[in-house]
Amino acid sequence: MRVYLDNNATTMVDPLVFDAMKPYFCDIYGNPNSLHAFGSDSHPALRKAMDQLYAGINAKDNDDVVVTSCATESINWVIKGIYYDSILNGPKDTIITSEVEHPAVISACKFLESLGARVIYLPVNDQGIVETNTLREHITDTTALVSIMWANNETGMLFPMKEMAAIAHEYGAFFHTDGVQAIGKVPVDVQDANVDFLSFSAHKFHGPKGVGGLYLKNGQPLTSLMHGGEHMGGRRSGTLNVPGIVGMGKAMELANAHLDMENSTVRQLRDKLEDAILKIPDVFVVGKRDERTPNTILVSVKGIEGEAMLWDLNQKGIAASTGSACASEDLESNPVMEAIGAEADLAHTALRLSLSRFTTQEEIDYTIDALNTAVVRLRAISSTYSYAPSWHKSGL
Amino acid sequence: MRVYLDNNATTMVDPLVFDAMKPYFCDIYGNPNSLHAFGSDSHPALRKAMDQLYAGINAKDNDDVVVTSCATESINWVIKGIYYDSILNGPKDTIITSEVEHPAVISACKFLESLGARVIYLPVNDQGIVETNTLREHITDTTALVSIMWANNETGMLFPMKEMAAIAHEYGAFFHTDGVQAIGKVPVDVQDANVDFLSFSAHKFHGPKGVGGLYLKNGQPLTSLMHGGEHMGGRRSGTLNVPGIVGMGKAMELANAHLDMENSTVRQLRDKLEDAILKIPDVFVVGKRDERTPNTILVSVKGIEGEAMLWDLNQKGIAASTGSACASEDLESNPVMEAIGAEADLAHTALRLSLSRFTTQEEIDYTIDALNTAVVRLRAISSTYSYAPSWHKSGL
Ligand SMILES: Cc1ncc(COP(=O)(O)O)c(C=O)c1O
Ligand SMILES: Cc1ncc(COP(=O)(O)O)c(C=O)c1O
Repeated sequence: MRVYLDNNATTMVDPLVFDAMKPYFCDIYGNPNSLHAFGSDSHPALRKAMDQLYAGINAKDNDDVVVTSCATESINWVIKGIYYDSILNGPKDTIITSEVEHPAVISACKFLESLGARVIYLPVNDQGIVETNTLREHITDTTALVSIMWANNETGMLFPMKEMAAIAHEYGAFFHTDGVQAIGKVPVDVQDANVDFLSFSAHKFHGPKGVGGLYLKNGQPLTSLMHGGEHMGGRRSGTLNVPGIVGMGKAMELANAHLDMENSTVRQLRDKLEDAILKIPDVFVVGKRDERTPNTILVSVKGIEGEAMLWDLNQKGIAASTGSACASEDLESNPVMEAIGAEADLAHTALRLSLSRFTTQEEIDYTIDALNTAVVRLRAISSTYSYAPSWHKSGL
Repeated sequence: MRVYLDNNATTMVDPLVFDAMKPYFCDIYGNPNSLHAFGSDSHPALRKAMDQLYAGINAKDNDDVVVTSCATESINWVIKGIYYDSILNGPKDTIITSEVEHPAVISACKFLESLGARVIYLPVNDQGIVETNTLREHITDTTALVSIMWANNETGMLFPMKEMAAIAHEYGAFFHTDGVQAIGKVPVDVQDANVDFLSFSAHKFHGPKGVGGLYLKNGQPLTSLMHGGEHMGGRRSGTLNVPGIVGMGKAMELANAHLDMENSTVRQLRDKLEDAILKIPDVFVVGKRDERTPNTILVSVKGIEGEAMLWDLNQKGIAASTGSACASEDLESNPVMEAIGAEADLAHTALRLSLSRFTTQEEIDYTIDALNTAVVRLRAISSTYSYAPSWHKSGL
């Protein structure tokens, strides 16, 4: 059996999404900016896709949703754009973000620090989230941007968007959220949350890789990251990725159509898996269950290196992660575990299991068995976990 | 009949390319950076694609070819990266480019001017190319980068890469070329031309939209445009677009496999079309035929607005362009025609016809007929073209 439980790293393209994209490779392949039928043939599908994107996040007509190549691009665009507009050529001097953001946010911020900008990385509490009070303590009138993720990619923990956006606005700062892990998991309503910018990536919600978006409230002007021709209203240059846009639109529609299922079926399967894991002694799951996206578990299994666990699971056809896929080719400790102050050795024992609407009951049952077997085997040979015969013998 | 003669704007995905990409949407969908089989299942195809890209431009093993989302991204990366490395944090102060570059180059340069960098836009001769002497007159020891396209998108005119790269190197400047219109049309050998950077976009050579690349000689360090996780050796962050990369590799292989055909069949069809056009009175084709890519014609048809011509051709199912697709939603004059100093009214009469290896003899014959009919009709109603009864009656 093959079981894919690494949906926070990337997802399978929904076959319905692929079907929607298919005509735009070899048949309707014109450049939509062209003045002929080969170009305009793609317009109805592009318009539909843009409508699906606007509807999916409840954007208003006068908001902009600009298609990019991925969330990394959207994030770099916002962070560097605000640097140019509000810091280099404006009266502000600081960007505030959190210690547990994705590397796209952290690295873009580090780059701005090298240019002389001030960046504050807010610490998180033991649940792995930034408390609103922590933001209040650091924000000032010279804060240009607050960038806090909607849902964490490792833990699934949800951050208080509405409250944080309101605090940012009190101080005249823009509020950006990395919404990558929220789309399709929880309702994402940009008007209700009142965020200024929201980044997303299609491949995290069963859309294609290589396409993402940035929402800009009221079409907020923002220095471009990609200068060039007048694509996307001059906001993001580069020939439009027609199949990618069509696929992302369809994926957004499907993500929202399946939100109920995500919060019933997927959540139940996740809870079943998590309950089984919690029966294992000396494990610890990060974050309160009902404050997380319905598909994610980040667990520390004491005495077992995350990579060893991945290896055993992989042998059984099960795909999981030790955390962000960006860095997982190295043997690194889990950065969120470090940020919440877990003991150093625990941060190396992180295992992330992330489900999707394609995950089945059988797959979860199979995974529970495989996990228990792996824990027994790996703890028996662990140099850091002392042998616990009674538990071992219980056959767990 | 439908005839696509706008291949400089974008191309049809070769069905063989689509076949190569197909498994990577719904079947082999893992994140290649993940530590499990769903991720590593994509590695053989990715390695093969990278080999195809290196081979396609004759890059050496210690060069870097980094996958981006399009040439616009690659171009923005080089131009802004050099600004940070050699100008803001280095001893240089100037970027030299040409008046006829693609908007991606021009706009990125304009942005750098707003940051205080000096940019020189070299003029072109009546063939639409920058002469090496013109470069010599402007380059100095403080030139950071020379960025000159390999082949122009409007005229197809080829620029003297090797000579220009050598001049740049004499002055300690880097040489970047926008190779978008050269790949698949003429041999592109980065070692022979000795360029430092080369940008390309898959959809211009029958690959998919939304993926491109940047070649960096000897893995030249360059400040990233996309900061984030450690993808592409830390050079370009964002989850890898696996189907896009696989498709671009295949497209590169096919482009090179068809170079001979491009220079025989495609060239013959282009010449046939051009010869027929040249029989029309008062037309003028930009650039010597044998100094152009084999697929392109940029012609001025006196007295006929480019858009009017597009309209008539479109009615017959023929797709052409007035120039770059980036701006063609506006009624703009052709910038290359302006740069070569054509009379102002001629710049509005530009018609670009660009063929591909999928263009057929029948399509060209059909287009010749349609063009002649359109010229007669449109000149008869033209306010700027005086009625020429003898020519009109000849039935051309
Ligand atoms: C929270 C979060 N932000 C941003 C990203 C970046 O997305 P992409 O790699 O598609 O640019 C990811 C995924 O890698 C993520 O999980
Ligand atoms: C010469 C040239 N450079 C750059 C580009 C930009 O390519 P893309 O739109 O794929 O980024 C184009 C095509 O639009 C082009 O013709």
